[in-house]
Amino acid sequence: MAPDPFVVVGGDAAGLSAASKFVRERSDSRDVVVLERGSWVSYAHCGTPYYVKGEVDSLLDLTTLSPDDVAERGIDLRRGHEVTALAPDHDAVRVAGPDGAFDQPFSDLLVATGATATDGPFDLSPAGAFTLHGMDDAAALRALVTPPGEPLEDGDLPDAVDRARAERYADDPVPDAVAVVGGGYVGVEMAEAFAARGAAVHLFQRPDHLVPSFGPAAAAVLADALADAGVHLHLGGEVTAVRSAGGRVTGVAHDGGSDDPTPLPVDAVLVGVGIEPAAGVAAEGGVALGDSGAVAVDRYGRTSRPNVYAAGDCAEARHVVTGDPTWVPLGLTANRAGRAVGATVAGDHTPTGGVAGTAAVKAFDAEAGRTGLVGEEAAREAGFEPVTETVRAGSRSGYYPGAAETTVTLTADAPTGRLLGGSVAGTDRAAIRIDTVATALEAGLTVAELERADLAYAPPFSPVWDPVLVAAKVLHGRL
Amino acid sequence: MAPDPFVVVGGDAAGLSAASKFVRERSDSRDVVVLERGSWVSYAHCGTPYYVKGEVDSLLDLTTLSPDDVAERGIDLRRGHEVTALAPDHDAVRVAGPDGAFDQPFSDLLVATGATATDGPFDLSPAGAFTLHGMDDAAALRALVTPPGEPLEDGDLPDAVDRARAERYADDPVPDAVAVVGGGYVGVEMAEAFAARGAAVHLFQRPDHLVPSFGPAAAAVLADALADAGVHLHLGGEVTAVRSAGGRVTGVAHDGGSDDPTPLPVDAVLVGVGIEPAAGVAAEGGVALGDSGAVAVDRYGRTSRPNVYAAGDCAEARHVVTGDPTWVPLGLTANRAGRAVGATVAGDHTPTGGVAGTAAVKAFDAEAGRTGLVGEEAAREAGFEPVTETVRAGSRSGYYPGAAETTVTLTADAPTGRLLGGSVAGTDRAAIRIDTVATALEAGLTVAELERADLAYAPPFSPVWDPVLVAAKVLHGRL
Repeated sequence: MAPDPFVVVGGDAAGLSAASKFVRERSDSRDVVVLERGSWVSYAHCGTPYYVKGEVDSLLDLTTLSPDDVAERGIDLRRGHEVTALAPDHDAVRVAGPDGAFDQPFSDLLVATGATATDGPFDLSPAGAFTLHGMDDAAALRALVTPPGEPLEDGDLPDAVDRARAERYADDPVPDAVAVVGGGYVGVEMAEAFAARGAAVHLFQRPDHLVPSFGPAAAAVLADALADAGVHLHLGGEVTAVRSAGGRVTGVAHDGGSDDPTPLPVDAVLVGVGIEPAAGVAAEGGVALGDSGAVAVDRYGRTSRPNVYAAGDCAEARHVVTGDPTWVPLGLTANRAGRAVGATVAGDHTPTGGVAGTAAVKAFDAEAGRTGLVGEEAAREAGFEPVTETVRAGSRSGYYPGAAETTVTLTADAPTGRLLGGSVAGTDRAAIRIDTVATALEAGLTVAELERADLAYAPPFSPVWDPVLVAAKVLHGRL
Repeated sequence: MAPDPFVVVGGDAAGLSAASKFVRERSDSRDVVVLERGSWVSYAHCGTPYYVKGEVDSLLDLTTLSPDDVAERGIDLRRGHEVTALAPDHDAVRVAGPDGAFDQPFSDLLVATGATATDGPFDLSPAGAFTLHGMDDAAALRALVTPPGEPLEDGDLPDAVDRARAERYADDPVPDAVAVVGGGYVGVEMAEAFAARGAAVHLFQRPDHLVPSFGPAAAAVLADALADAGVHLHLGGEVTAVRSAGGRVTGVAHDGGSDDPTPLPVDAVLVGVGIEPAAGVAAEGGVALGDSGAVAVDRYGRTSRPNVYAAGDCAEARHVVTGDPTWVPLGLTANRAGRAVGATVAGDHTPTGGVAGTAAVKAFDAEAGRTGLVGEEAAREAGFEPVTETVRAGSRSGYYPGAAETTVTLTADAPTGRLLGGSVAGTDRAAIRIDTVATALEAGLTVAELERADLAYAPPFSPVWDPVLVAAKVLHGRL
């Protein structure tokens, strides 16, 4: 009898990274089975706003591997198969598939069930109300912003798409006005997408600045770019309800903020108020969750249940600065942790690596990156005695064409001098500079050590003192 | 009687960084005197090719501080003052100034005399023969490539310029053909400048690839960009003589290389075959030089003579990878070491920091960065057992507009896994990515540690696996 396979629940970044690594590295005769409840596999969530905007031509461009590619790798991929339960006392999962329910035994199991977008307190059932989390949301939103009669894509929509949902918007005009609720990544990127498509965009953000984890200085750079492009920013503004009539969105009610508090008529609403880990089945199966609500894992991605791993947006990871478990659902984390679990299950024990929450976002020509603990509040909560400095410095030698102001925030622990995090924002190669800070965090450098790093200087690329070095110099002076 | 001042020899990056830091930090009543033999102070060598090309409008744009700015900082700057000797048995330097020679006593002395361009074996006395090392060379070269009758700059040339030399080329037509001898930074940047000015450019490089310290993969990216722009590359080609008639360059004789070995008629020659430390006066004054020929210093910039420091292009520094003294004349190194010496002399003992030889260069739309020990030969010479890998990966998510191939080379020590150096080349934010590698070198990371770094992923800026991470992953697989 064949040995029980390695079973992976979820066919996106973490799941397919694990399965691919496993089939390359395995030294036994086990198969790998990937159970994906939907029809899409291996796609780039992060690219969906650019598909809505129109910078990406086709939904298929956002996929890395087709189902056929996956099969060619020797992975037994089963789409339309939802895992509904973990058997309480033996190594199997309960699966609801197109041909009915069955038990799938496993030797090892990876839970890679991802995350889901939260609706917040809103009724998003009317036409014109959206979250953006996945390819079918993207297809529907692209239909919304495509003028009637124009094709959604060059050529046919891919088979996997929820065609009925997209076609619901095929004959509607491009919305005149859109409310974007939430100023995180999705909110900022979708505000750009809607504005680029010609809609009047109102962006509501309950905190007083966008993308809170980037800190106020970087957020202000993004906010300026959005405002310059005509986006109406309602910072500190809370949407209290989505209004509809006849099954269609007609407006939002909002309270406070920097603009008129009366109801605002809009044709569509995009809610980007957060995502939450899809850890329900794991939890019901006796797998311990962490404080974040995501699956608790050790440094190899192992959960509290023997032979059960978790990786990707449904799982926690160790924060490189605090050393504590954290939940930061991002693409590289998912790919890396999945790949590590695949190697471990294949017999090559591989840590999943820590996360620093390094991320980047753009708003028209402005871009920002962040990593670690940015700002004193986050650092103080983690038990540090933080000092933060923000500097503005040129991206290139001042005399070289294209030099642009670059805003750098760095946070350090005063007693030890250890670098805790930072952000970089601007219009000229700003986001990519965060990788310098992220590498310094991985290495546990102090601010003084970062200040001494021999970074590249050449007039077209950086001034003598790179903006990150300027920030380190100023912050070091305050320690 | 006033105490003897802190005397700085040389008024460029290292010298003025030291003087400026000293006046801010000093806790005693000493003055600082800066003796500069020329008329220019505080200017950006690295920007001169872009002035010749025309991307920088004015020579003054390349200066950071004017003489008046320097004076306002409380620095006693004396231009046209050349230090000709160190007194052998007491703390003074011999100075040749506009009003004659005198002895200048010092409490502490900083030798920041920079470097000079070497002529190689060539007679560069004919009109049309150049090196590029300093503002007067830049002014003459700009005159060479400016059509007769057109002004060299908007407005008047600055007072400090060697006007007679620049005006020698004022009435000459833009050269039809130029030979660039040497494919280092200056050669590559000046090939771009001449080509942009409409000259047919022949670039001769004796080694078989450009910018040898970047390794062949990065060099090939630059070479392709130059060739695409019409520059004739003679790799492996040696210029044996500069030919002249009537006091003007008429051609070069060359031997071998990828092109016709017959003499080549050209109207001008730019020789960029290297620079050497200007350490003669220090050496004659009993200051020990290192194997490189530059002044030997400890980690505070102290030389073998009491109270005598050296910094900048005339001095060695400690290599962050090998720990050995090295000579890498670059702008950030000079600024940082000068600043550290200024602090130390003021009483705040500050290490000058190590160098990794991090550098960046561009050729039209291609750019490259390098740091540490690139390639197995350099690493083997330093006593390591190196392994090198080169990968080509996208600069952004493949579906995002603007994604471009990025070539990354990483070198590591096989027994320890320690990262030793690398290069990054491409057309989309390639050079700046070298800072990630440089930071990893400063921290002494292994390849496995770099592979685990949580770098930023967002489609407009980086694929899920940044090209540097891809290279680390591949190299790690070979260790």
